[in-house]
Amino acid sequence: MKVVIVGATGAIGSAVVNELRSRHDVIPVGKSRGDFQVDITQPASISGLFAKIGKFDALVSTVGHVHFAPLAEMTPSLFAVGINDKLMGQVNLTQLSTEYLNPGGSVTLTSGILSREPIRAGSSASMVNGALEAFTLAAAIELPRGIRINCVSPTVLTESMESFCPYFRGFEPAPAARVALAYSKSVEGHHTGQIYRVG
Amino acid sequence: MKVVIVGATGAIGSAVVNELRSRHDVIPVGKSRGDFQVDITQPASISGLFAKIGKFDALVSTVGHVHFAPLAEMTPSLFAVGINDKLMGQVNLTQLSTEYLNPGGSVTLTSGILSREPIRAGSSASMVNGALEAFTLAAAIELPRGIRINCVSPTVLTESMESFCPYFRGFEPAPAARVALAYSKSVEGHHTGQIYRVG
Repeated sequence: MKVVIVGATGAIGSAVVNELRSRHDVIPVGKSRGDFQVDITQPASISGLFAKIGKFDALVSTVGHVHFAPLAEMTPSLFAVGINDKLMGQVNLTQLSTEYLNPGGSVTLTSGILSREPIRAGSSASMVNGALEAFTLAAAIELPRGIRINCVSPTVLTESMESFCPYFRGFEPAPAARVALAYSKSVEGHHTGQIYRVG
Repeated sequence: MKVVIVGATGAIGSAVVNELRSRHDVIPVGKSRGDFQVDITQPASISGLFAKIGKFDALVSTVGHVHFAPLAEMTPSLFAVGINDKLMGQVNLTQLSTEYLNPGGSVTLTSGILSREPIRAGSSASMVNGALEAFTLAAAIELPRGIRINCVSPTVLTESMESFCPYFRGFEPAPAARVALAYSKSVEGHHTGQIYRVG
């Protein structure tokens, strides 16, 4: 399969590349690195990316930025960061990939554990992750030509615990390589409308 | 208790007014009707509303518009309708009400069944409802002075089935008066961070 991985140079994305590259034609996409570049906040940048790559079988998105701040300090413009980047960036990737995906192809998005287990200063992340998971359920019953969509909702990464552990006390972390298995299940399996909770 | 009901003239809001008005000082707010008016897409309009009302004990929001269309026809600007209205309108109501809510007061938001049981043409509603439910979990652990927050996630209303039933085949509707009980549970009970699924 030809698998486009947006966010391929990140902690999760690089683990997904490692998981899939021995079996598939993996195309790594980053914001400034990778074989191709994309700014997911700009639909024209996404369209340009897919026009350059052409038809493919699977889109994996492991990207998305949100602003972390105490709820009392969150403003509409700080909420808009996550809405425009992690949420609508991934929704637009989904929408614009549809015409390039071969029949039976798949889209795999990334949310995160904060949709169900919030932390302080994470209200925007919770909101965006909850939105992505519900969007996945909805898109699964509308995508054409047997195109599937799933969402991976990982816990905090073992690799990130050194910097993030004060915010995630008691959360059991998962190594990126283990999180990557969920993307393999989505891309190489046959499910649709699933939220794969890892951790 | 002094209870501010935003969306008081709608199908759910008017049932909540009926449920609460014999026991509480209910202040009905609408977009163009009610004792006060507010445009929830404008933070300045929300601030102006609360400045006029002064301190209160409970905010109930039964408002929010989203655009329904087939996924293939949804664009970033059509997704923005629901994000700016039902989602950020209710988030901004929550944020801006905090300083006016008395200690131990409550916020009750409204999402809907499409977060967990999608219908075709409802991807924006699913997304927004999922976002609101996860935001509720997150805000519950950050609101100050014992202020609580819950979210009611109702099925389709019995009163709306005449026009909506082609889209909701097999969904068991609930009368607005029954949905209103969940708002009473939130306002008059002591829960926080709960999603009350009705139907």
